[in-house]
Amino acid sequence: MKDLAWEAGVKAVEEAGISGKDIECIVFGNMSGGLFVGQEHVAALVADFLGLNSVPATRVEAACASGGAAFLQAYMAVASGMYDIVVAGGVEKMTDVGAGQATSILSGAMDYEWEAYFGATFPSVYALMARRYMHEHGLKPETLAKVAVKNHYHGSLNPLAHFRNRITEDEALSSPIVADPLRRYDCCPVSDGAACAILAPLEVARKYTDAPIRVRAVAQASDTLSLLGRGDLCTLRATVKAAGRAFEEANLGREEVDVVEVHDCFTIAELLALEDLGFCKKGEAWKLYDEGQTYVGGKLPVNTDGGLKAGGHAVGATGIKQVVEVVRQLRGEAENGRQVDGAEVGLTHNVGGTGATAVVAILSR
Amino acid sequence: MKDLAWEAGVKAVEEAGISGKDIECIVFGNMSGGLFVGQEHVAALVADFLGLNSVPATRVEAACASGGAAFLQAYMAVASGMYDIVVAGGVEKMTDVGAGQATSILSGAMDYEWEAYFGATFPSVYALMARRYMHEHGLKPETLAKVAVKNHYHGSLNPLAHFRNRITEDEALSSPIVADPLRRYDCCPVSDGAACAILAPLEVARKYTDAPIRVRAVAQASDTLSLLGRGDLCTLRATVKAAGRAFEEANLGREEVDVVEVHDCFTIAELLALEDLGFCKKGEAWKLYDEGQTYVGGKLPVNTDGGLKAGGHAVGATGIKQVVEVVRQLRGEAENGRQVDGAEVGLTHNVGGTGATAVVAILSR
Repeated sequence: MKDLAWEAGVKAVEEAGISGKDIECIVFGNMSGGLFVGQEHVAALVADFLGLNSVPATRVEAACASGGAAFLQAYMAVASGMYDIVVAGGVEKMTDVGAGQATSILSGAMDYEWEAYFGATFPSVYALMARRYMHEHGLKPETLAKVAVKNHYHGSLNPLAHFRNRITEDEALSSPIVADPLRRYDCCPVSDGAACAILAPLEVARKYTDAPIRVRAVAQASDTLSLLGRGDLCTLRATVKAAGRAFEEANLGREEVDVVEVHDCFTIAELLALEDLGFCKKGEAWKLYDEGQTYVGGKLPVNTDGGLKAGGHAVGATGIKQVVEVVRQLRGEAENGRQVDGAEVGLTHNVGGTGATAVVAILSR
Repeated sequence: MKDLAWEAGVKAVEEAGISGKDIECIVFGNMSGGLFVGQEHVAALVADFLGLNSVPATRVEAACASGGAAFLQAYMAVASGMYDIVVAGGVEKMTDVGAGQATSILSGAMDYEWEAYFGATFPSVYALMARRYMHEHGLKPETLAKVAVKNHYHGSLNPLAHFRNRITEDEALSSPIVADPLRRYDCCPVSDGAACAILAPLEVARKYTDAPIRVRAVAQASDTLSLLGRGDLCTLRATVKAAGRAFEEANLGREEVDVVEVHDCFTIAELLALEDLGFCKKGEAWKLYDEGQTYVGGKLPVNTDGGLKAGGHAVGATGIKQVVEVVRQLRGEAENGRQVDGAEVGLTHNVGGTGATAVVAILSR
């Protein structure tokens, strides 16, 4: 875990053109260091291993939205005027335990007493949501497969993706059932990873770069941990709330967004996200996939780094990894033909649990 | 864990005279919900259980300084201008596991690879610090005992303390050895608990109270997780750094502080804290104890709620519990004869691990 954080941290510092000595505050997302690797006190450890004592270092946890939540806290640290150069990072080392144990640890993001205790796992609860969505909106398995095929295609263009293999719709549709109707290719992997971004007031950032990326808004919202508290299994209310606030703060319309990173822990989650973020009507995300509009080159390129599905899902790092990809896109630096032409505005969407936490950030050139 | 957080949250809301609907942001400290009760995503759970969806809710972790770190993040959330009424809370449910397992879970605050893996526990590493301090500064066991006796006395005056029994110096000195030279009465207990404070800009707070308590400064610093990286076992550099910054920001001198809550996870830690915070010279804290100056009524009343030793140490809650006691003192509300007469300025000091994180806050009337 230390090595992952170190690698991401050093790359971010080098790319930003700052020195470690310039860093004034560290906020690191991490979901479950205690259960995955026996290590809490994660942010101070990262500061220690990066040689950044005595910089204040705080871990933030909001399950799989830990990275996004860390981004908000880092953003507020800058906005408060207390710190100028702040690291927003995330890390998770998930493969030191077996896959079954990882699934069990991830259940810590659910309501333990009402869900995990009874044996619920994340594939099973997202399967409930997918099944309900099929019932209400006539979703076909082919649409779920198209999400996976597209994300694997994008992943094949991203040198840092967990999976770089392309798949076909047939392969997705014939992969083994994990939790009906979700198949293997509907589920993101268990990943190791870390990501870092450096935040600063605009006038400070301009000392280091002629083209800083602006954080236009970061908004977070919560909802019940357990599905049983939701009125509607086909909508993540926290996403709707966070997106509403973020677009209002940024004073931008949906149509102005050029590239989107959403939380596709399962393929169904990507469809829900696009609808809840307001990019299409409820029940109509399938159209974007039928028309191929979510590929690079389409009207709304989604998860150009492969998303969680192919890019990987090191849970505490994911929210920051999304920011890194959007920054690449807005700077025109995305490699291997996955650059969205003339991208000016990008959005990230990071979810904890089945939507008990959602964080939406809007960035622009 | 939910019940504890609920109880503290409801009391804070009632006492502040606000309504739950006024709350805009929740930051909750929790060290190890995953290992203690199988529950991560702790802050969203608290929001859920308090009926506060969709308020953004974020867990903060910095080992036993999780509460203090949450206080800083909540303070920055207000200072950023993004949120007006913010809850800074902390919770830990530690007694669902056995004492041995609790000790092992707490070792997650150390560097796992360099300390915990080899069997180090917190009593053992603080014992190393105490032994070194004895060697360098001629500390007598009687001084450690005086710390425990004083904190148990203060605890006896605090209706919410974990231990309300008074002890004698003889009892402390003859209690069983835990990790030489630390005995049972040198060690704080494993506690269940929660605490909450409500933060707001001063002009907003004035709508609810004529006597708001002002946060004059909150500062945090980090250090190596493992003791082997320290130059000096008798000083917590993170405390020195955080205190320096806090007093500078508050523009106050040490002599202006009327009441102090320090992190006495072990009696030796209270002595180190008073020295590192600058209230006396290194090696001279014993004088304050010989003269009885750290009792209510003395020159520098320390841990008037019983501290961690007698008040209890529900790790994620401790940093906020300290703030609550200082607020009580500054408002003149401390019960049972433990009120410090005319207290105007108070300080809290919360430590993670053996000092890898320290948070110092200064509050005033």
